[in-house]
Amino acid sequence: MAIKTRFTEEFGFDHPIVQGGMQWVGYAEMVAPVANAGALGFLTALTQPTPEDLAREIARTKEMTDKPFGVNLTILPAIKPPPYAEYRQAIIEGGIGIVETAGYKPQEHVDDFRKHGIKVIHKCTAVRHALSAERMGVDAISIDGFECAGHPGEDDIPGLILIPAAASKVKIPMIASGGFGDARGLVAALALGADGINMGTRFCVTQEAPIHENFKRQMVENDERATKLIFRTLHNTARVMKNEVSSEVVEIEAQGGAKFEDIQHLVAGVRGRKAMEEGDPDGGIWSAGQVQGLIDDIPTVKELIDRIVVEAEEIIGARLDRMVV
Amino acid sequence: MAIKTRFTEEFGFDHPIVQGGMQWVGYAEMVAPVANAGALGFLTALTQPTPEDLAREIARTKEMTDKPFGVNLTILPAIKPPPYAEYRQAIIEGGIGIVETAGYKPQEHVDDFRKHGIKVIHKCTAVRHALSAERMGVDAISIDGFECAGHPGEDDIPGLILIPAAASKVKIPMIASGGFGDARGLVAALALGADGINMGTRFCVTQEAPIHENFKRQMVENDERATKLIFRTLHNTARVMKNEVSSEVVEIEAQGGAKFEDIQHLVAGVRGRKAMEEGDPDGGIWSAGQVQGLIDDIPTVKELIDRIVVEAEEIIGARLDRMVV
Repeated sequence: MAIKTRFTEEFGFDHPIVQGGMQWVGYAEMVAPVANAGALGFLTALTQPTPEDLAREIARTKEMTDKPFGVNLTILPAIKPPPYAEYRQAIIEGGIGIVETAGYKPQEHVDDFRKHGIKVIHKCTAVRHALSAERMGVDAISIDGFECAGHPGEDDIPGLILIPAAASKVKIPMIASGGFGDARGLVAALALGADGINMGTRFCVTQEAPIHENFKRQMVENDERATKLIFRTLHNTARVMKNEVSSEVVEIEAQGGAKFEDIQHLVAGVRGRKAMEEGDPDGGIWSAGQVQGLIDDIPTVKELIDRIVVEAEEIIGARLDRMVV
Repeated sequence: MAIKTRFTEEFGFDHPIVQGGMQWVGYAEMVAPVANAGALGFLTALTQPTPEDLAREIARTKEMTDKPFGVNLTILPAIKPPPYAEYRQAIIEGGIGIVETAGYKPQEHVDDFRKHGIKVIHKCTAVRHALSAERMGVDAISIDGFECAGHPGEDDIPGLILIPAAASKVKIPMIASGGFGDARGLVAALALGADGINMGTRFCVTQEAPIHENFKRQMVENDERATKLIFRTLHNTARVMKNEVSSEVVEIEAQGGAKFEDIQHLVAGVRGRKAMEEGDPDGGIWSAGQVQGLIDDIPTVKELIDRIVVEAEEIIGARLDRMVV
């Protein structure tokens, strides 16, 4: 048995489950097992220091799986931007069939990818942005709710509202993102009008995720309340794991609107990288979604995906069907 | 056809749909059509000036419906509290079978209601509070997510996370509240582990809701972004309609932590009541949930409930069932 939707049919995957781009996580070690399990995984382009490194990472992933996978390209406004056109070229030359775009005005990239027959899924956090991406010509939308790890935008609209609001207007397939980690969420997303789910935090808490075991254990231990929204005052909100550092950032921001310079030392640089390598959950700022509260174990990627599909079939075929009398 | 759950079976209603207590809305005019349509409506005790008025409102509702309905009793800490015991007595003597409690330490009331054979549904906004209410001996939980109108609590956990997190731990029937307005939401709630949904804002936008037509039209017009969270700085957060007054309150709070005295004149008193009677959406503070973004019409209560049930059956029987192959 399987769950089939417009997304699985049009994109050619076994399961309507996506592992979207995640900075410092979207390596071959994460993406290959997702692909092998029949779902759609994305390498994260900008996690690779150079376009050449991305080309090598694509090749490395292909050695680990025969199944298709994608690459995420996130466009951020920057004074000195990364060489986006060269990353894009590495993706095209790498023979990638699906790209996840996110961020600021991706039109030029979308056009070029589509010219090369590459499907584009654009990730965004608001209905108006989804409609704008649809007009831009992308093949699917990944819509990210308030619950998500990383950047939920500034509107604070959770999936329960955002997904049906978008589904009423968007015509192309839509992946629901933010707050998803189990079969209950998958079926809810499908009921709300989505064609599949994206999971971030949940994929981080798998055997294969290339992050320190201590972070995985911390996310299992954390409940749904153990996140913080930082950078609200900078209008660049990020949902991160609640710990000493993120709590300090929130405190500084509450005292009257922080400038990035005031908190930069807390969130980046040597201290953060060292803590990440040493596996110190209290040593830096780490993205984590509210779905932590629904995570109780550290399965393999294949165990996780198979379990979600089997349990989703049970929820539809047993629980919901029996309610209709 | 119908949707049957533990809630409809144990509480004896046709549909797993609840119209919970709403201040200044939960009158006989709102509750009777909900009861007549086979769902569970609640009068709001404290909307009645005195316990005697509540007794009369119960009697008046009984003249408008032969079906069962409930009364909401919300317990708020106050220096000079309303005569809760007398309101409780009016409920018991009125022959009410179901009470919705909310707020602060309802144990004494729960005990007395249950002693009189009255079922109690306790409304709360956090898993730990749901578990505490279960231990207190209530018959069901109504769990209210971040999306909701009125008081979402201070944890900011949306239904997509809150419902399954609670469902994993709570053993008694559970109603999902906050962000619900259509069949997609009902099926999502059932998939996430709830046994029914509560709707507030959606019931306000019906023909029968005893509020000025201008408010109904404004909520149809508003999208999901047209709410504001006020009283954050007082740790008594309320989600209200975005307008000039609520935006001003948020602005005052952002300027360094408002005291209630600073904003009281904006949110209550003669100005608010006059605006309510005159139907001026910009004239005061009005509860409204994010589900505004999913509301496009002003049906009768019966049309609304019938439509949700029929469409929920279609989502389960057509959309979801066909996805399982």
